[in-house]
Amino acid sequence: MQIGRIAGTVVSTAKEASLEGRKLLVVKILDSDAKESGGYVVAVDAVGAGLGEVVLVASGSSARLTEATRDRPSDAVIMAIVDSWDIDGAVKWRKNT
Amino acid sequence: MQIGRIAGTVVSTAKEASLEGRKLLVVKILDSDAKESGGYVVAVDAVGAGLGEVVLVASGSSARLTEATRDRPSDAVIMAIVDSWDIDGAVKWRKNT
Amino acid sequence: MQIGRIAGTVVSTAKEASLEGRKLLVVKILDSDAKESGGYVVAVDAVGAGLGEVVLVASGSSARLTEATRDRPSDAVIMAIVDSWDIDGAVKWRKNT
Amino acid sequence: MQIGRIAGTVVSTAKEASLEGRKLLVVKILDSDAKESGGYVVAVDAVGAGLGEVVLVASGSSARLTEATRDRPSDAVIMAIVDSWDIDGAVKWRKNT
Amino acid sequence: MQIGRIAGTVVSTAKEASLEGRKLLVVKILDSDAKESGGYVVAVDAVGAGLGEVVLVASGSSARLTEATRDRPSDAVIMAIVDSWDIDGAVKWRKNT
Repeated sequence: MQIGRIAGTVVSTAKEASLEGRKLLVVKILDSDAKESGGYVVAVDAVGAGLGEVVLVASGSSARLTEATRDRPSDAVIMAIVDSWDIDGAVKWRKNT
Repeated sequence: MQIGRIAGTVVSTAKEASLEGRKLLVVKILDSDAKESGGYVVAVDAVGAGLGEVVLVASGSSARLTEATRDRPSDAVIMAIVDSWDIDGAVKWRKNT
Repeated sequence: MQIGRIAGTVVSTAKEASLEGRKLLVVKILDSDAKESGGYVVAVDAVGAGLGEVVLVASGSSARLTEATRDRPSDAVIMAIVDSWDIDGAVKWRKNT
Repeated sequence: MQIGRIAGTVVSTAKEASLEGRKLLVVKILDSDAKESGGYVVAVDAVGAGLGEVVLVASGSSARLTEATRDRPSDAVIMAIVDSWDIDGAVKWRKNT
Repeated sequence: MQIGRIAGTVVSTAKEASLEGRKLLVVKILDSDAKESGGYVVAVDAVGAGLGEVVLVASGSSARLTEATRDRPSDAVIMAIVDSWDIDGAVKWRKNT
């Protein structure tokens, strides 16, 4: 999975019928210092994530193994909201609660 | 999914029989500022998209989960036309209507 | 799919039995100006393409959805020969006929 | 597979139900000199690997072919702990035992 | 497929049970001039390839379509040993026999 921050939304009226009602979010990918890497992906939300939250994105066929995405033409899904994340003993992110 | 702009077409007479009648479009990939990234992909159109439109492209096995692409040797599909798209509070694209 | 030009061949005697008799071609990937990008892929030919031809290559599991590649350990297939290809109103390639 | 070093953990309360109880580890990818490449991936642990260990990560649909990941929305799995690793006659890594 | 040269081995005692007895080889990826590109992949050997040999590597789900890899968590397989390889009329590699 990749770690990203939810940065925006995509609105689409004309889309595959099976994607009706799915929330399409723009996720900016974070590097191992929790900085934006410059890349992004549009993913279907499967966990009720909101703008600004740090999340995990699964890609490829694995992106279809949630209730929100099963058998749908989506190649990326948000399948976890990150509470905290550490690398080499340093906390890179902690969700405000 | 990636966001792209439909920039051209590919014409092919000699192709896998199962792709007969499918529209093959050249989609230039857009970065998170809605500028061309330099990359492109050739995708089958599943939603009746036209030249210049901004669209979502799904890749890999998920590209086969539309009526237009099921069980066909296509690794990319246009599965949504983008009406609008925003990142970090700024509108990156809005379709003229 | 990616657009490429068939630039060479790979000869292999010792290979998975299911690939016996399959033609393995070296395809140089073209960028959106129809110039070589520096990348290449080795793909199984499913459409009788020849050296110098411009073709479409499908990758991943979709590369197995042709008669030539079904259930075989191939991750790339040539599934269309390009007659012509245009981007932003300019013809990037036209096959001599 | 890619070779990486386990560098951290991701904690997530709100995640796909099928991932409940799975350990999510941050793996820094190593290059062919066993140095960090700058890339990382978050992977589910299938072999009881610990912080600092060098491991193999399988991606894509193959990441679901372990007991820990079957039918789950995970696109990366740690499926082996590396005891030793050599390239061109030089030992790049040997686990302390 | 990618073309690579077998450069080393990975030894792993603690691994997914289904990979028991599989040979894990480090393959350095070659560019279109048959020079090392800097990249590598760890692949399961399905054809009895040896150190120094030039081989084809298939990735993704296609990497599971050999006897050695079926239903196993491997995302890369060596499925052919290259006898010779030419690009643009020049022989890039020929196996000593």
